[in-house]
Amino acid sequence: MNINYSAAASHLGSSAVRDILKVTQGKDIISLAGGLPAEELFPMEALREAYSRVLSTDSSALQYGLTEGYTPLRDKIAARLQEQGISVTASELLLTTGSQQAIDLICRILLDPGDAVLVEAPTYLAALQVLGSYRADIQTVANDEQGMLPDDLEDKLRKFKPKLLYAVPTFNNPSGATWSKERREQVVELCRRYGVLILEDNPYGEIKFEKNNKLYPLPLASIDQNYGSEPCVIYTGTFSKIVAPALRTGWVTGPPELIKVLTKAKQAADLHSSTIDQRALDQLLTSFDIDKHIRLISAEYASRMELLSAELTSRSWEGVHFQKPRGGMFLWLTLPQEIQAAALLPLAVEKGVAFVPGEVFYSEQPQKNTMRLNFTHTRPELIPVAVQRLEEALVQWRHSTQLI
Amino acid sequence: MNINYSAAASHLGSSAVRDILKVTQGKDIISLAGGLPAEELFPMEALREAYSRVLSTDSSALQYGLTEGYTPLRDKIAARLQEQGISVTASELLLTTGSQQAIDLICRILLDPGDAVLVEAPTYLAALQVLGSYRADIQTVANDEQGMLPDDLEDKLRKFKPKLLYAVPTFNNPSGATWSKERREQVVELCRRYGVLILEDNPYGEIKFEKNNKLYPLPLASIDQNYGSEPCVIYTGTFSKIVAPALRTGWVTGPPELIKVLTKAKQAADLHSSTIDQRALDQLLTSFDIDKHIRLISAEYASRMELLSAELTSRSWEGVHFQKPRGGMFLWLTLPQEIQAAALLPLAVEKGVAFVPGEVFYSEQPQKNTMRLNFTHTRPELIPVAVQRLEEALVQWRHSTQLI
Repeated sequence: MNINYSAAASHLGSSAVRDILKVTQGKDIISLAGGLPAEELFPMEALREAYSRVLSTDSSALQYGLTEGYTPLRDKIAARLQEQGISVTASELLLTTGSQQAIDLICRILLDPGDAVLVEAPTYLAALQVLGSYRADIQTVANDEQGMLPDDLEDKLRKFKPKLLYAVPTFNNPSGATWSKERREQVVELCRRYGVLILEDNPYGEIKFEKNNKLYPLPLASIDQNYGSEPCVIYTGTFSKIVAPALRTGWVTGPPELIKVLTKAKQAADLHSSTIDQRALDQLLTSFDIDKHIRLISAEYASRMELLSAELTSRSWEGVHFQKPRGGMFLWLTLPQEIQAAALLPLAVEKGVAFVPGEVFYSEQPQKNTMRLNFTHTRPELIPVAVQRLEEALVQWRHSTQLI
Repeated sequence: MNINYSAAASHLGSSAVRDILKVTQGKDIISLAGGLPAEELFPMEALREAYSRVLSTDSSALQYGLTEGYTPLRDKIAARLQEQGISVTASELLLTTGSQQAIDLICRILLDPGDAVLVEAPTYLAALQVLGSYRADIQTVANDEQGMLPDDLEDKLRKFKPKLLYAVPTFNNPSGATWSKERREQVVELCRRYGVLILEDNPYGEIKFEKNNKLYPLPLASIDQNYGSEPCVIYTGTFSKIVAPALRTGWVTGPPELIKVLTKAKQAADLHSSTIDQRALDQLLTSFDIDKHIRLISAEYASRMELLSAELTSRSWEGVHFQKPRGGMFLWLTLPQEIQAAALLPLAVEKGVAFVPGEVFYSEQPQKNTMRLNFTHTRPELIPVAVQRLEEALVQWRHSTQLI
């Protein structure tokens, strides 16, 4: 039977990267490709107890729940956000199936086909895919190591009159970069001035490698609140990286009216996310020291990052450079101009190491000589091995390109 | 700040019913309004053990999972569907956040604004809302107690060339009606002939009040498979009513290519549903006799339905009639033509009983003298009290309309 799919379906994007990386499954390949936190650090026993307590209360725990999400958990998230400089109440929070769903629903309620959305380069791939699926006109704002460039931002705000600006300003996926305080303030000021909403996506913000200062880096949402009036920032976070991904529990907050519309959209989409998982997280936060846990995983990830960084630095590959991320899960490697990471990947896989070619993280004008390396999902002792294999792939690349 | 929402947002529909019913919260009101299964029947202890086992295995249980859903659970669902006459493999199944998400994603990949969709009258409210949010041109096919009328269906297939036909043919929400075998065959034949996909939504199909015959009523999906070629039916089911709603775990199967596209859409929407809940359900199915459990809850619901039916019958209200449902959770009451259930509701709430006015379940030409009564979420001893209060509301209605 010939099925006529919708226009939205035809814009769901390809899975080229996923297909490439599928070949890494089940082989002796060290994958620096995935965006996976370290399983061995998941608080499994604490979660087991939490679920057990949830399922020892009354059976209302298993009944249909609120679309907004389990209220006591929203209360606790509000309290944690308060400590991070974002002042919200439970009623201004919506719980979603990860931040991914927050991004999807925000696009659904804001974007008509052709609406302009401003992004950084590079940026989170799955967000580009969602924006594409809503047929947004994605425009890239130029940036440097400090963040978006204000002049280019203002030009594009004027020229494209976007509906939204999407950013991952803290420990960016894929680049690991963090916007400076000054740039954050400038971006918020400009967007407020031009009346453009910002979607701040912050899944890694608490995984800091430096001093454990809760108010640094200051979220855009916090800076925005200093203006003391109607919010301009929609802020989404998640438990996926700081507790565990399978819980699929994220949150979003923003202009109260928008959160109400978002809640209606979520109700139509799936009634509500798993309230069992939400209740379990609430239980966990009651008796488990999550801040201590976050310090623990941050220290471990910092250590792995340092190991990867040291290995890369010690190799002194010609024309290869990177900046050490100050938090998060990814290190962004730039190769000499003539090396296309996507073409290098098959060689690397053959040598037994995988990464994600950086070009997929661009909406336009992809920098093909970049790659994203994850350091959280590889055991420390394998990191030098991975780098060794990467070197072998590079050597083979140079060989084969010289022979042409 | 003035936020310009998308066209999709403006079609999210009102919450008039929800607002009315909110006033029933926290008061001494017997609600026959909700669509809630009975909490006291949830297999809480078995679920507690199941979660405990899941969280005693290795920590991969807490890692990101497949968009398609936990494979062993898909295997078990395939086996159960096999027993119900639907032959599918795990790879043809996608797990979703309840059937609600299946409906939403199917609309996303099939419907462009203005595409026609055929529905029954009355039908599931939240499905009408989803269809409306995708700006479908919803057309109602006439029906009698046997189901959709084939002549009218054929007329509308020709006239509107719909993208989809949405139906709840077994223990319908809200009407409790079940299509006859003959009508099922006719509808499938017609839709196949005109090349129109059917979305069969079957959340209540296993909650049968009569003989426990797994192959009766035969799902449209099963009848469709007898044609032995490309499927024409997309079939969705859920654990919400047969285990518990908070698990938010449903499944959908259909034409293999469509399931692939659906899976891409789901990945963009939320990466995947809670794999902890999926694993727990898999554990549950390993050691818990779910068929015995379903027989138990079906018997209890049958008993409550009989109680409600007997009470209503004994009252002999003039001009009020209903048909006893053969399964599911709802009984559909038709009042005399001059009584609008929506106008009766405030009186009923005042007397201490709530129901859902039937008119909300229609896309067009609503029958305003109908109401949906749920019998699963009220303790048996309160059912006569609820009916008594309904009578008092009707009496007061007649009084006040006579005084005008």
